[in-house]
Amino acid sequence: MILTDHTIYQELAQKNDHKIVLLVMDGLGGLPMRPNGLTELETAYTPNLDRLAREGSSGRAVPVRPGITPGSGPAHLSLFSFDPVRYEIGRGVLEALGIGFELGPDDLAARGNFATVDEDGRIVDRRAGRIPTEECVRLTQKLQEHTSLAQEGVQVFVRPVKEHRFVVVFRGPGLGGELTETDPLVTGKPPLPVRDLSGTPEGARTAALVNQWIEQARRVLADEPRANSLNLRGIAKDPGLPHLQDIYQLRAAAIAVYPMYKGVAKLVGMTVIDFEGDRPQHQVAALKKVWDAYDFFFIHIKKTDSYGEDGNFEAKVHEIEAVDAVIPDILALNPSVLIVTGDHSTPARLRSHSYHPVPTLFWGPQVMPDSVTTFGERASEGGALGLFHATEIIPWAMGYADRLKRFGA
Amino acid sequence: MILTDHTIYQELAQKNDHKIVLLVMDGLGGLPMRPNGLTELETAYTPNLDRLAREGSSGRAVPVRPGITPGSGPAHLSLFSFDPVRYEIGRGVLEALGIGFELGPDDLAARGNFATVDEDGRIVDRRAGRIPTEECVRLTQKLQEHTSLAQEGVQVFVRPVKEHRFVVVFRGPGLGGELTETDPLVTGKPPLPVRDLSGTPEGARTAALVNQWIEQARRVLADEPRANSLNLRGIAKDPGLPHLQDIYQLRAAAIAVYPMYKGVAKLVGMTVIDFEGDRPQHQVAALKKVWDAYDFFFIHIKKTDSYGEDGNFEAKVHEIEAVDAVIPDILALNPSVLIVTGDHSTPARLRSHSYHPVPTLFWGPQVMPDSVTTFGERASEGGALGLFHATEIIPWAMGYADRLKRFGA
Repeated sequence: MILTDHTIYQELAQKNDHKIVLLVMDGLGGLPMRPNGLTELETAYTPNLDRLAREGSSGRAVPVRPGITPGSGPAHLSLFSFDPVRYEIGRGVLEALGIGFELGPDDLAARGNFATVDEDGRIVDRRAGRIPTEECVRLTQKLQEHTSLAQEGVQVFVRPVKEHRFVVVFRGPGLGGELTETDPLVTGKPPLPVRDLSGTPEGARTAALVNQWIEQARRVLADEPRANSLNLRGIAKDPGLPHLQDIYQLRAAAIAVYPMYKGVAKLVGMTVIDFEGDRPQHQVAALKKVWDAYDFFFIHIKKTDSYGEDGNFEAKVHEIEAVDAVIPDILALNPSVLIVTGDHSTPARLRSHSYHPVPTLFWGPQVMPDSVTTFGERASEGGALGLFHATEIIPWAMGYADRLKRFGA
Repeated sequence: MILTDHTIYQELAQKNDHKIVLLVMDGLGGLPMRPNGLTELETAYTPNLDRLAREGSSGRAVPVRPGITPGSGPAHLSLFSFDPVRYEIGRGVLEALGIGFELGPDDLAARGNFATVDEDGRIVDRRAGRIPTEECVRLTQKLQEHTSLAQEGVQVFVRPVKEHRFVVVFRGPGLGGELTETDPLVTGKPPLPVRDLSGTPEGARTAALVNQWIEQARRVLADEPRANSLNLRGIAKDPGLPHLQDIYQLRAAAIAVYPMYKGVAKLVGMTVIDFEGDRPQHQVAALKKVWDAYDFFFIHIKKTDSYGEDGNFEAKVHEIEAVDAVIPDILALNPSVLIVTGDHSTPARLRSHSYHPVPTLFWGPQVMPDSVTTFGERASEGGALGLFHATEIIPWAMGYADRLKRFGA
């Protein structure tokens, strides 16, 4: 495994009309439920994916480092060729970008969770009973109206995301530092104050401002039945990543349903495509519409991961089959490279993300048809790509798409 | 292959009650003795190891770098997740730790070899005819009594190891530098003086002191029939490595017979377990006794390497079979992860350590049962772990043992 360094690709990248499709089934990798059993992907009836495996090259991707289970943000950064250990992105930044909030250089973003606390201020429910999204909209409007840091020269934007989740953005000069989260991650304890770990005057001031806002916000929420408190997590600024266009000369489009994934895609310069519907066929219809305008297409399928986290093996199998069914429509567009992978494994058996390498296939006219004949965790073990770091995916695709000039004479 | 960097693991490590066993057969990897032949491991009847391979994941470990044959010290450092190219440890330090000599920050340790020289001072036998250990004890006592650097403010400790091997430790402020060895590695030449390569005043003084002691020692030994001279090798201080407890939050125990391996284990903070006997079953009995008190267990089997170095293919096969026989007793303890590997290859055909990747298997409830069904050099080629750097072993085990928190949201 080699961690991708962008410098050499930036030097060699060239434009042409070859299209690259990166189809990501979130949490794709699985485990057998019992000894001698099959994984979700091995169980699914996937004649189209199997054809791609037969005609292309397979391997398995390590998202972060051996043994390390990634969150969705780092896992996607890695797919986009950014080593997540080197490029750490705050959750607040991802959520803000995900709802279409354009972050500027003076903006500090946090992911907010409405919570329920008891009369002593101890957390009873970290998700405020997963209040409906309409409720979230009303509460964020209430906070927007009745909280302010204007006296400190800081603008505040409070925006709903989904259910108990919202985003708060603080805009003003000199915000920064390395800020801790307020969520103690367990019930029975009060929320924590935000602290600054950077030791800079900037960080100390920012922590004080954020704590001041939280105090106001909790007063505003005090009379709410469920969402009578809140926590802030991943309080950070946009790290200003280089864009795929700048590194690879790729005009990139993201076809995703969930905010988080749109957020990471924007971070590396992708255009987020709006479309109707939330099923794989709707995503492929959107792909068809924008096919001529872009070079690189990131399609994100969320439900494979959700079903894995629910421990629902059968539903995950069906979702993989639903994705298999749209493969012919993608092939009809004549991509030069089609990659099918996941951002990490989410075995239904473990009901959570895991560190297991992710089965991955590359298909296209220049891809070596290796000895692998089906798409699956174990089938891909013997594949031409071996065990590789996920940051290698775009580099290989660039090669298969003839988008890299020769290195040296 | 990724070289393990401890920083990320230190951040993510968490405690639980899952146990990890690292079973190391020294010099495990082999070669066929003839075309179309089998290796030692492939020849051995190993129903238990084959079961582990069938139920777990296999791969092959590269100890140092492609093509590089390691000594035992570096090879074990690598198994313990320390890149031996980055962390160089003097042989003297390893030997001193191996005999239970506690090295302090003012201590400079050297491995000593008694040698036979002719009347012109040329080495006739670099091992003084492998004198018996009792003889070694007498000679080191003689040196302890009749040599001294007290006038220079330096204490000297001379301790026996085994046969012609001993340890000398120089204790005093300001010792250091980068010191060369005295052993010319061939007979027919006189021993070399110690030189300092660091160019520091400290190094120059230390080289002079060590040479002064060597001169005294050779005078004391002059009337001995066989051990009438000596050589010093690996003259160095304890590098102060981080401990497994600090990096991985693992309470680690070493169950080894030979001093060298106890020494490396101590260097990374393992507790060396005392026990009766020197066979695999005695080691597993010791494992059982200390099972509750530790999280990580390093079991070191020496004889696979010794037989390899002797060119004794059959004896190496039998030793592997003896290890296979104790596997059920290890499994009876319910480890969460069992790793079976070697520190390097020692093919009987080559009669020496070699650079060939080492067959390695991981077994445990969270380990993917890959397509490999027996334990062997060639069987493991198709395994889920691929060809990896040995420093990845503990990281993967940490994942399989649920001992790493999720990385990022």
